[in-house]
Amino acid sequence: MRKTLFSILLSAAAIQSTFAGDPITLRDMGSFHVGGRVVEISGKPVKEVVFGAGGVPAKVDPNGLYQVEQMYVQYFLPQNRKGKYPLLMWHGGGLTGATYETTPDGREGWLNLFIRKGWDVYNSDAVERGRSGFAPPDVWNGEPNFLTKANPFERFRIGQGLGSWNADPAKMKVNVGSQFPVDAYDNFTKQIVPRWINTDEAIIAAYAALVDKVCPCVLLFHSQAGGFGFTVAQARPDKIKAIVAVEPAVAGDKAQAGRLKDIPTLVVYGDYIPLDSRWPRMRQIGLDYADAIRTAGGSADVVNLPDVGIKGNSHMLMMDKNNGQVADLIQKWLVDKGLVD
Amino acid sequence: MRKTLFSILLSAAAIQSTFAGDPITLRDMGSFHVGGRVVEISGKPVKEVVFGAGGVPAKVDPNGLYQVEQMYVQYFLPQNRKGKYPLLMWHGGGLTGATYETTPDGREGWLNLFIRKGWDVYNSDAVERGRSGFAPPDVWNGEPNFLTKANPFERFRIGQGLGSWNADPAKMKVNVGSQFPVDAYDNFTKQIVPRWINTDEAIIAAYAALVDKVCPCVLLFHSQAGGFGFTVAQARPDKIKAIVAVEPAVAGDKAQAGRLKDIPTLVVYGDYIPLDSRWPRMRQIGLDYADAIRTAGGSADVVNLPDVGIKGNSHMLMMDKNNGQVADLIQKWLVDKGLVD
Repeated sequence: MRKTLFSILLSAAAIQSTFAGDPITLRDMGSFHVGGRVVEISGKPVKEVVFGAGGVPAKVDPNGLYQVEQMYVQYFLPQNRKGKYPLLMWHGGGLTGATYETTPDGREGWLNLFIRKGWDVYNSDAVERGRSGFAPPDVWNGEPNFLTKANPFERFRIGQGLGSWNADPAKMKVNVGSQFPVDAYDNFTKQIVPRWINTDEAIIAAYAALVDKVCPCVLLFHSQAGGFGFTVAQARPDKIKAIVAVEPAVAGDKAQAGRLKDIPTLVVYGDYIPLDSRWPRMRQIGLDYADAIRTAGGSADVVNLPDVGIKGNSHMLMMDKNNGQVADLIQKWLVDKGLVD
Repeated sequence: MRKTLFSILLSAAAIQSTFAGDPITLRDMGSFHVGGRVVEISGKPVKEVVFGAGGVPAKVDPNGLYQVEQMYVQYFLPQNRKGKYPLLMWHGGGLTGATYETTPDGREGWLNLFIRKGWDVYNSDAVERGRSGFAPPDVWNGEPNFLTKANPFERFRIGQGLGSWNADPAKMKVNVGSQFPVDAYDNFTKQIVPRWINTDEAIIAAYAALVDKVCPCVLLFHSQAGGFGFTVAQARPDKIKAIVAVEPAVAGDKAQAGRLKDIPTLVVYGDYIPLDSRWPRMRQIGLDYADAIRTAGGSADVVNLPDVGIKGNSHMLMMDKNNGQVADLIQKWLVDKGLVD
């Protein structure tokens, strides 16, 4: 395994792609919403609401049918397609599809980089977040959770754990050698959106609806979406041609991991995990799931980036300064698996 | 005025642009967040939260600093730029930038159409919505409002007013000759997101920050964003080279309309307004504001589409079946104002 990974690393530069600055030519781009359901709310009083200062009052009857739990998906289809299947990008907790767009310090993110590599990319906002919208409080039993500016800095291995963030940049305790664009951390916090903690079922249902609509495909998912991605792959194994799990914080059901035995799977982890209070346990969840896939006769490659000489990566690999290098490593793996023309 | 408008209509077909099916070549595409502020919340208990079923519990201290009221902006810069300035698209109430993307029935929306016409397009989600996220309840004094499936059908002049929507499509009372893609109305309702009614100040501040970042520019705004667009133009008149107000439901401060006297302004309304219970008054707000611009020596063209032979438009002109025809009318006006190379 180690030898293979070094060869991946060394040959990554040979991968054909267009570069930042070159134009991006798309045969199509657009968006849609998928999935969701209609719920009825009843027994509430009619309200009169003025929408916007100076607006004309409108009667709003909150009783009735509501569209909820749909998911927003934006797609970009390069003219020079090389990926054999669509590449679906699923973001992590408290975030949206913006995760894969321009990095907080203004470089190209994985959306652009994988379009440039010739992939049809479908980038989505999980149910409850971003352009997917969220349901009335009567529908979900629970409230949204909000993250402080400090929270991701301390949990995402940008800083040195709890207490490492500081409003004064000079006092921040950044992991030594971090590839995260720390000077743009404030911009990153603008990407954070509220999240619920009891909506997994709705989120998974919408992702499954997306798979039913656009796959066969390759899934690339991050962090919280580890749970969603592996679970959907268990439910739709024939539709998934490969899985790239980027620092999955959650995995699927080990008892069902055998359903992934025909799906080549790559699991990628960044740096600083042994220094963190939670990540050793979280990585173990992913390693155990990968073992379960292999035990069932499947193929699951695990890359700890520092082991192959790629150091300094935070949990947010797709926006770290070496995001292009990590994208190339993933692309090389996809090439090796025969998924690129 | 009438004669000019007919000439706009008749010559619209002569406007150069690429067509659906042709590739879209971009010299760049990406996104960023702009504006916002940091607020402090204090005195709340620490919670233990499990993020995702099977996740490792994390202590979440809700006290601390929060990033709030930033705005998400996505941009697409065509290789063959013809618009002299960036074109900023601002959506209406209860919606996001998805308004301007693929229509609910799968045709190209104004985002693609204006990119094809050579405009650098910046499409945003207003503060509180979509990928902009929303603030903790302690920050905004008020709750989000949710729209039923029926509400936009009855308020946006798709149906014949209150009571016109029905879960059974055969029983819907659609405006006769409607250009709205009624068969895809359910898809449209998936675009709806919750909205607050007391966040105008924060929304305007973020739009002003966007103008400061990317303008001089042309503003194109819809419905609720009438209030935001005209207000920001009043505050930054030197930065705005033209305004296209699409069915503004709100206007600016008439006493300040003179600040727009050097900004060519087009106001466009669709069909069925006299039949609606609220739209005659809402249109009057826009007409009065346009009068105030002219009284101050400025230029404000008002187009009621049925008067120039374009019939059947709902409030959602950018997704009606003739959205290309309305886009061409706007483009012709922009050409006439010297804003296209």
